[in-house]
Amino acid sequence: MHERATHDTSNCSIARSLEVLGERWTFLILREAYYGVTRFSDLEQVLGCARNLLASRLQMLVREGILTREPYHVPGERARSHYVLTEKGQQLIPALVALMEWGDRYLADPAGPAVRAQHHGCGHRVRVEMRCDAGHRVHDAHGIDLEPGPGFRPVSEQIDSVAT
Amino acid sequence: MHERATHDTSNCSIARSLEVLGERWTFLILREAYYGVTRFSDLEQVLGCARNLLASRLQMLVREGILTREPYHVPGERARSHYVLTEKGQQLIPALVALMEWGDRYLADPAGPAVRAQHHGCGHRVRVEMRCDAGHRVHDAHGIDLEPGPGFRPVSEQIDSVAT
Repeated sequence: MHERATHDTSNCSIARSLEVLGERWTFLILREAYYGVTRFSDLEQVLGCARNLLASRLQMLVREGILTREPYHVPGERARSHYVLTEKGQQLIPALVALMEWGDRYLADPAGPAVRAQHHGCGHRVRVEMRCDAGHRVHDAHGIDLEPGPGFRPVSEQIDSVAT
Repeated sequence: MHERATHDTSNCSIARSLEVLGERWTFLILREAYYGVTRFSDLEQVLGCARNLLASRLQMLVREGILTREPYHVPGERARSHYVLTEKGQQLIPALVALMEWGDRYLADPAGPAVRAQHHGCGHRVRVEMRCDAGHRVHDAHGIDLEPGPGFRPVSEQIDSVAT
């Protein structure tokens, strides 16, 4: 048995993030939100996904506090809603940029990536990097130790707490 | 119509990454690979997922060059295989750390996150940050302009190339 089997993984932050996000369409809706595509009809057109799927994912993203539904009024047209990123949604951008960077590197067409993330104002390419709180660059997984955090629970403790 | 509807998104690097990774179990298998859980039986026990699902995801990750299947020999036991991250797999760690960080911030138990990513050797917490090639920190999505890259294709061009 691997030592890892003694860890209770039910409060893992990666698993919890994926419970919310772990579906391709959800990430793609967020991608469009960063592009400023916020209206249902525009999302439907750009993503080309089924209306009911889009509606249920938007509802979930609003429920989770990642998007907020706000009134939207074009003079002369009826009032509509659109979907805007909250602070919690904005904070997902490093995960999206990390996925984009990996895709650019390993999955792009010979012509190169479709999109370039560049720093607003200065124009240089934006990348994600790992750094520790002492300011050192962390280049790969070998530079990271995954240690028990404050919420760590061994499996036995979880079993005990269920038993009592 | 949103201007974004004129972009051909078929070579988007986020979408391509998610075609490979866009499923919760795939990310969780990678999470365990970073923890050094590499044997089928250990992955099955830690993840608690169905054997056929685990087998198909591992097969896909090997096919995509993210994991490699290598012989593994414990003296006195029969030869087995285990699954080891390739360089391409190692390069996904910033995306995983970004998801972990977001989950730590927004979805953790009151006790705090289960796991702490710390810098090997120095012990300080590892975070993901966005930075441009000129070295400036990029704090949020407002600091990023998404501009056409070398592989950008407007939708009309895609339609033209299908028509000819």
